[in-house]
Amino acid sequence: MGVTGTTSGGESGAGSGTGAGTGSGTGTDTGPGTGSGTGSASGPGGAAAWELLLPVSSAAPRQRGRVLQTRLREAVRSGRLAPGSRLPSSRELAADLGVSRGLVTDAYEQLTAEGYLTSGRGAGTWVGTWLDGAARTAPAAAPPDGERAPAPAVDFRPGSPDPSLFPRTAWAAAHRRALASLPHHALGYPDPRGLPELRAAVAALLARRRGVVADPARVVVCSGVAQAMTLLALTLRGRGRRTVAVEAPGSPEHAALFAAAGLRTAPVGLDAEGLLPGELAASGARAAVLTPSHQFPSGIAYSAARRAALLAWARDADGLLVEDDYDGDFRYDRAPVGALQGLDPLRVAYTGSVSKSLAPGLRLGWLVVPDGLAEELVERKRTMDLGHPVLDQALLADFIARGEYDRQLRRCGRAYRQRRDALLRALAEHVGDAEVTGIAAGLHVIVALPPRYGPQERLLAGTARAGVAVRPLSDYGPPPATSRDGSGDGGDWSDSGDGGDDGDDGRVRLVLGYAHLAPGRIAHGVRLLAEAVRRP
Amino acid sequence: MGVTGTTSGGESGAGSGTGAGTGSGTGTDTGPGTGSGTGSASGPGGAAAWELLLPVSSAAPRQRGRVLQTRLREAVRSGRLAPGSRLPSSRELAADLGVSRGLVTDAYEQLTAEGYLTSGRGAGTWVGTWLDGAARTAPAAAPPDGERAPAPAVDFRPGSPDPSLFPRTAWAAAHRRALASLPHHALGYPDPRGLPELRAAVAALLARRRGVVADPARVVVCSGVAQAMTLLALTLRGRGRRTVAVEAPGSPEHAALFAAAGLRTAPVGLDAEGLLPGELAASGARAAVLTPSHQFPSGIAYSAARRAALLAWARDADGLLVEDDYDGDFRYDRAPVGALQGLDPLRVAYTGSVSKSLAPGLRLGWLVVPDGLAEELVERKRTMDLGHPVLDQALLADFIARGEYDRQLRRCGRAYRQRRDALLRALAEHVGDAEVTGIAAGLHVIVALPPRYGPQERLLAGTARAGVAVRPLSDYGPPPATSRDGSGDGGDWSDSGDGGDDGDDGRVRLVLGYAHLAPGRIAHGVRLLAEAVRRP
Repeated sequence: MGVTGTTSGGESGAGSGTGAGTGSGTGTDTGPGTGSGTGSASGPGGAAAWELLLPVSSAAPRQRGRVLQTRLREAVRSGRLAPGSRLPSSRELAADLGVSRGLVTDAYEQLTAEGYLTSGRGAGTWVGTWLDGAARTAPAAAPPDGERAPAPAVDFRPGSPDPSLFPRTAWAAAHRRALASLPHHALGYPDPRGLPELRAAVAALLARRRGVVADPARVVVCSGVAQAMTLLALTLRGRGRRTVAVEAPGSPEHAALFAAAGLRTAPVGLDAEGLLPGELAASGARAAVLTPSHQFPSGIAYSAARRAALLAWARDADGLLVEDDYDGDFRYDRAPVGALQGLDPLRVAYTGSVSKSLAPGLRLGWLVVPDGLAEELVERKRTMDLGHPVLDQALLADFIARGEYDRQLRRCGRAYRQRRDALLRALAEHVGDAEVTGIAAGLHVIVALPPRYGPQERLLAGTARAGVAVRPLSDYGPPPATSRDGSGDGGDWSDSGDGGDDGDDGRVRLVLGYAHLAPGRIAHGVRLLAEAVRRP
Repeated sequence: MGVTGTTSGGESGAGSGTGAGTGSGTGTDTGPGTGSGTGSASGPGGAAAWELLLPVSSAAPRQRGRVLQTRLREAVRSGRLAPGSRLPSSRELAADLGVSRGLVTDAYEQLTAEGYLTSGRGAGTWVGTWLDGAARTAPAAAPPDGERAPAPAVDFRPGSPDPSLFPRTAWAAAHRRALASLPHHALGYPDPRGLPELRAAVAALLARRRGVVADPARVVVCSGVAQAMTLLALTLRGRGRRTVAVEAPGSPEHAALFAAAGLRTAPVGLDAEGLLPGELAASGARAAVLTPSHQFPSGIAYSAARRAALLAWARDADGLLVEDDYDGDFRYDRAPVGALQGLDPLRVAYTGSVSKSLAPGLRLGWLVVPDGLAEELVERKRTMDLGHPVLDQALLADFIARGEYDRQLRRCGRAYRQRRDALLRALAEHVGDAEVTGIAAGLHVIVALPPRYGPQERLLAGTARAGVAVRPLSDYGPPPATSRDGSGDGGDWSDSGDGGDDGDDGRVRLVLGYAHLAPGRIAHGVRLLAEAVRRP
């Protein structure tokens, strides 16, 4: 691609379709029009192209704002607007599209809030370089026009497990058994809570592995954490709640997910021990989404004291904590930390899925809800989709009952530990002055590079040129504040020592996911990364 | 079961857990306390039992209204409150539960609006005898306390296909092939619109079989009609709509489904040609849910003139028609009637599923949306659950591509036609004075019995005693008005001749579903039915 932006004044080019982290124009100060790639000229190279990419003039005037936001989001997610692309100024885009400038400003602000775009310090608007949505949908979803952006040489963006570890043979056998043994009547409309056998199996599994207090009657089978959050959000909205607190830094998907259910998100900061209870109380929210086992993305494990403080908040404020145990199955060097839910099942809703242990494409997960929410939430699940597919449920129940799920977790755990070790070795060898944290669990680490490698935009331009896709921690929100006394057992953050309370110490922090990469690819990627960051 | 109600004054007994249409106390004038069944004493036999069945006192005062409604709904759905049970007066239940009478009145009104309860003419409140929710969930979902109500001898309640027709062998083979051929990356997060192969296969299938104009880009794979309606409802709500028109009579599930998405339902009447455009315009709604191929439950096929009139309304009012083609695959004696959507794809959203052709438990369906709604709706599907399970999608794509789906439709069509014919023969033989309509398509018919078999409550008590589960048309709303000139090609209703415009001609109309019953069961059931209705 590498189409030079010529929209107006040479300031607003958007190299399109170059794929995550490859090609040029990726959020740097090198200015527009330095496209280094080759390929078709299908990108938005002028006014007509912007109107093609973001057609809004055909929409009714009152709809145009929403249409613009939707199309912009879609263009980013599909890769037609490449990560790191610089967008035209609001004045220019408004002129090109024939809409008011305020409408473009609103769209930029909304998508920046949602994390699709980032705003430089007074210097324009860029497509985020992390693109969680793109990473999630890109492998399966070719852009609508059939284009496919070239993949980076090594992609360290977090969020994906290794699909080649999916146990196809065992899965096929379990499907065969489930289909053969399911009675006819079970093929009818399902129990909206889930198949009783699966709820019992999940309850036992979560109790044993994660210390979750799970009565099968309060387990709801759903299509994963996103649906679990949607069901909780709609239930809370139905009770008059308007705001949910989320971790900052945290998942960039939360804002859009909760907005779709009518809830505003209130970002609440972290320190080395976890979410800050004072900020949470000040937010006015009465529900908070947490990742206490291995905070996403910072990698912090919530301290025992912080867990207790947050539960005390929940009891005092009649609040609900929502525990997203997205990678709690994978721990390497540290003692198991049980789920927060086990400490107070009346105040914590727990959710997890098979996305990291089996495959995201299965869309299969669970939610354990406090008693007071269970009936209403199940009723919402019922009206929303009449329950989860029964064959998939019977299959997973069989898979768990036969010990296959435990075998799979062990297999993945071994593979991911090897990959983490390969990453740590390579980083020590090639970027010895980097500080690596969040390593004890999960499927990604945080690498903090000394300030001399910065500024961040230049560093990211370098890694993109080198064919290494990475995401800066800043794409997810502010870094956790360093702790005041260094005693947090979440640990590593407090070692940095040289930072202020807000973590803005001039270092560039990268989030490196490793689970989907073979050890050899990891070593190769770190070599490329090291060369890129060293280049002056 | 058969616990005698002794709550107060001998007026409010509720025989619990006797299952649909069996046992006593089923909505008759024979009064309370005539329980004929045997079994455990777990039913609500007094004040303490009502509090056990509907525990609300532990809820916070402001929550009690909602808790009562939720528990009442759940008790009906689980069968703990049996179909036909009479509920205590609002005054009595309020006293038993220690809540205000207004709260109970509200709950009764809400659940009556949702179709869980029915109100006799000034004579109390009863559990509906049709219980769509219970029929849907009961086979798979044992009541929470492990009880299981005895099934009726013959169950004519509509809504279920025959699960024994599910092609297990072909399905297992398709799963094996899909799993073997799916590339690794396709196991990642799916395209929220659905697997491209499946969208293309569904688009071609719907174009060929139903005359749907379906660009694969506007096909959204979802978990069935309920989820399709939820996605549409949330999208309309997001655009400021507050009301959706629904057919009356129509699906009793609509009110709860749309309420969960923030929309009010406006019931709009029918005549022999379909939904009444004048009433629709007067409702103020700008979206309407229709079943034009074989109206549920009346069996009417919308006339060509009515289709045109409704599309004209949609264009004039900037309205949306939502076509629920729930059983459009099954036609017997009449020429194929294409989908309404084919007439104006910009004004009609089309939805269907494999629930009737394969099995409801698969939870797999599709939605074809007008261009202006597609992107926003897909974004809602994405935030709601990140897309449909990919293996299920790959399986169905394979199944359709190999012609297996067409084979299955032919196989079901043959079986269902035989069953319909068996039903018509048995009705002609045993209840010759009944008028049978809605016979040309679908999986159920309407049987109108002369007024001398009434009144309805006594007739239903008789069929229940005979072990035959049926649902009166009145449970779904008012019957269609008879047409003024008898020229509607929807047909059979206009033949009745003897009714007024509102169809309230004193006849008892029953909705008989036959698809799930073998011909021998059907004949047996009609014999039992005939004996029951003839009994003085």
